[in-house]
Amino acid sequence: MNELQRRLAKRRAQGLYRTRMVLDSPQAVEVRVGDDALLSFCSNDYLGLANHPRVVEAFRSAVGRYGAGAGASHLVTGHTRAHHRLEDDLAELIGSERTLLFSTGYMANLGIVSALAGRGSRIYEDRLNHASLIDAARLARAKVTRYPHIAVSRLADSIDAHGPGGLITTDAVFSMDGDLAPLPELVRIARDAGARVLIDDAHGFGVLGENGRGSLEHWGIPPADPAILMCTLGKALGTFGAFVAGTADLIETLIQEARTYTYTTALPPAVAEATRASLAILRDEPWRRTHLHALVQRFRQGASDLGLALAESRTPIQPLIMGTATRASDAAAALRAAGLLVPAIRPPTVPEGSARLRITFSAAHTFEHVDRLLEALGRLPAVDDATAP
Amino acid sequence: MNELQRRLAKRRAQGLYRTRMVLDSPQAVEVRVGDDALLSFCSNDYLGLANHPRVVEAFRSAVGRYGAGAGASHLVTGHTRAHHRLEDDLAELIGSERTLLFSTGYMANLGIVSALAGRGSRIYEDRLNHASLIDAARLARAKVTRYPHIAVSRLADSIDAHGPGGLITTDAVFSMDGDLAPLPELVRIARDAGARVLIDDAHGFGVLGENGRGSLEHWGIPPADPAILMCTLGKALGTFGAFVAGTADLIETLIQEARTYTYTTALPPAVAEATRASLAILRDEPWRRTHLHALVQRFRQGASDLGLALAESRTPIQPLIMGTATRASDAAAALRAAGLLVPAIRPPTVPEGSARLRITFSAAHTFEHVDRLLEALGRLPAVDDATAP
Repeated sequence: MNELQRRLAKRRAQGLYRTRMVLDSPQAVEVRVGDDALLSFCSNDYLGLANHPRVVEAFRSAVGRYGAGAGASHLVTGHTRAHHRLEDDLAELIGSERTLLFSTGYMANLGIVSALAGRGSRIYEDRLNHASLIDAARLARAKVTRYPHIAVSRLADSIDAHGPGGLITTDAVFSMDGDLAPLPELVRIARDAGARVLIDDAHGFGVLGENGRGSLEHWGIPPADPAILMCTLGKALGTFGAFVAGTADLIETLIQEARTYTYTTALPPAVAEATRASLAILRDEPWRRTHLHALVQRFRQGASDLGLALAESRTPIQPLIMGTATRASDAAAALRAAGLLVPAIRPPTVPEGSARLRITFSAAHTFEHVDRLLEALGRLPAVDDATAP
Repeated sequence: MNELQRRLAKRRAQGLYRTRMVLDSPQAVEVRVGDDALLSFCSNDYLGLANHPRVVEAFRSAVGRYGAGAGASHLVTGHTRAHHRLEDDLAELIGSERTLLFSTGYMANLGIVSALAGRGSRIYEDRLNHASLIDAARLARAKVTRYPHIAVSRLADSIDAHGPGGLITTDAVFSMDGDLAPLPELVRIARDAGARVLIDDAHGFGVLGENGRGSLEHWGIPPADPAILMCTLGKALGTFGAFVAGTADLIETLIQEARTYTYTTALPPAVAEATRASLAILRDEPWRRTHLHALVQRFRQGASDLGLALAESRTPIQPLIMGTATRASDAAAALRAAGLLVPAIRPPTVPEGSARLRITFSAAHTFEHVDRLLEALGRLPAVDDATAP
C-alpha cells in the first residue's frame, strides 16, 4: 500500500470517507439522482434563483453576446462591461464606495487578508470561521489568535493584550451552525482598537436584512471602515463568484496587490450578467425572503414540537447535531430512504463529536415540503440518544 | 493620508500603478473598448474557442437545462452529471486514471500542494513559477527551495543536499516568457529521488502536443506517477475553471483532503458542458493548432527580420523585453494609438528590469493580423535601446 492508499484507508476506518453523489437534475428543491426523485434540503440557493427564468435568460443571452470565457485576467483584457456593471450594481445595493469581483469567495478571502495583514501583523479569528479565512491568515503569515466561537469578551481581552491594530475576521452567518456573529460588538471593538474587521457574509447576503443586503443591513452597520464586507454570489444569488465591498482606497489596493485577483482569469462575463439579473430579482421579489423566513419558522416550531434539539439559528441553515459521524451518516441514509436529501456534515468540517444533519431551506420550498421533512425526522431514532457514544 | 493611500501613492510614483480597461466586446482578436475597435494580442483564448458557435450553443443549452449556479459544493449536492462527464472526458483525453475539477487553477494548485506537502516537507520550485504555486507552497507551510529558472542541475544538487522525497512544482509553459520547462529531466529527477512533480500546464493544454493534450504529450511523458498534471480551462479551452489529472489514489486523496475542493461552490454545471464542447473541437478542428503555430512562426520570422530581440519561446506567448516599466508602458501606449492592444507586463508580475510586452496569439488571428502587429512594432523606438536605464 502506498502512502496515499494508507491515508485513504485510515479515513475509511474512521467513518470519515467522503463520496460524491452525481445529480442529474440540480434544482434547489427537487433533484434527480439516477432514477431517484428526491426532495432536497442541501442547497445554498436560498432564494431559488439558480433556476429563475430571468436569471437563466440573462445568462443565456449574455453567453451569446460575450462568449464563454473572459480569456484573460482583469488587469489584462478580461475585465468586460458586464463585470464593471455588476461591480457598480453591487456597490449601489450595498451602499459602499466600490466593490470588486473575485472568482470565488475562497480567493477573495485569501486576497483581502494577504493584502491587509502581512507577515508579523496580527489576525484575530473566530474558531468556527470558514476554511478560507483560516487559510487566508496562514497564507499571509500573520500571527493568528483564535477566539472561542462568538466570545467577544475573549476577543477584547486578546486585543488588549496584543495592542492596537490588526485584522479581525469572521463569518457573519456561520456556515455549519447558522448562527450570527455579534457584528455590532465586533465593529465597535475593531474601531476602538484601530483594527479592521473582515466580514464574510456568504450565507447572509440576499437572505438577511429588509432588502436582502445581508448581515450589515440586518444589524444596521454601514459598509465602511472599519468593516470590510465579502459576499459570495453562488449561494442566495444563484450564480457563481464573490465580491468585496469597501472604500475606494481598499478596492484600489486590492486591484494593485491582491495576488488572487491579479493572477487569475476573470469570471465568464455571462456569469456577471446573470448575477445582475439576480440582483434585480432581489429587489423585485421580496416575497422570496419573507417566504424563506416563514419556512424556517414553521420548521423550528415543528421540530420543537417533535422534541428535536434545535440550534441557535434563525437563518435558513438549521443544523441538527447528531454526535458521532456514524450517527449523522445513518440519519442521512434513513432520510434518503424516505426520499429526502439532507447532508451529513462530519469532522473535520465540524468539530469532533458534533457531526450533524445540515438542513438548508430555499424560497423554492413549500410548507408541504417542510412538513414532509418534519414527518421523516419524527421517524428517526430519538435525537437525544445521539450524543451517546 | 491613510496607510492604503500611502501604498497607492508609492505605487503610482514607481510607475507600477495598474488600471483596468473595460472591454465592450471581448473576443480573442477584435475587441471594442468604448468607441475604439482594437486588434488584440492579449488573450489566453489560444484556440479562439471562447466564441466558437458550438461552445456558445452548448453553454446556452446547458444553462437552460441546469440553471445558473450549482448551489453547493461537490461533496454536498453541487456535483452534477455535467461535472462528472467532463471529468471522464478529460481523463480520456489526457490518458490519466482520473481527473478532478477545481473552480480555478489557483485553487487547484493550493489544494494539491497542501494535500501532498504538509508542514515540514520540502518543495522545490522554479523561480519563475506562477503566483499560485508560490502561494501554495507558503500555504502548505512546507520548506521551500527555489531553483534558478529551468536550472535542472541546480535542482538536482538541492535534492541531493536535502535527501529523497518532496514535491517539485513547475509551470510547463512559463506564463510571462512562453518557454518550456525541461519536463523529461524534471520527471527523471523526481523519479530518482522518490519525489513527485506537479506540472502546471495552464498555457500548454490545448496548444501543445499533436492532439492538444499539452506539454506531457509534447514531451511524451505519461500522465502518471511521479507526474501530477494541473491544467486550466479558461485559456485554450475558452471557458473557466481547472482540473487535476493523476492516479485514482491521488484524485480520491484530493476529494478527501484538498480544502479548496471541499469548501467551495462547484462550478456552474453549464460551464462544464461548454468545456465538453471545447474538448470535442480540440479533436475535430486540429487546424486551429496548426494555424496557431504558423502564426507564431510568421511572427518570429518577421520580428527577427526587424531586428527585435525575441525570447526563447515557440509557444503563442511571445514576450518582447523592454526593460523598465515606463518603457513597456510607453510601447503599449504607442501600439494602442495604432489600434493594437498588447499588454505591458511590469514588476512584480515579472522581475525588476524585465518589464515587457506580452504578445499572445490565437487561432482566431490571421496572417494579416500578424503583419499589422509587425508593422507597428517596426515603428516603435529601437528595442535595443530598451535595456538602457
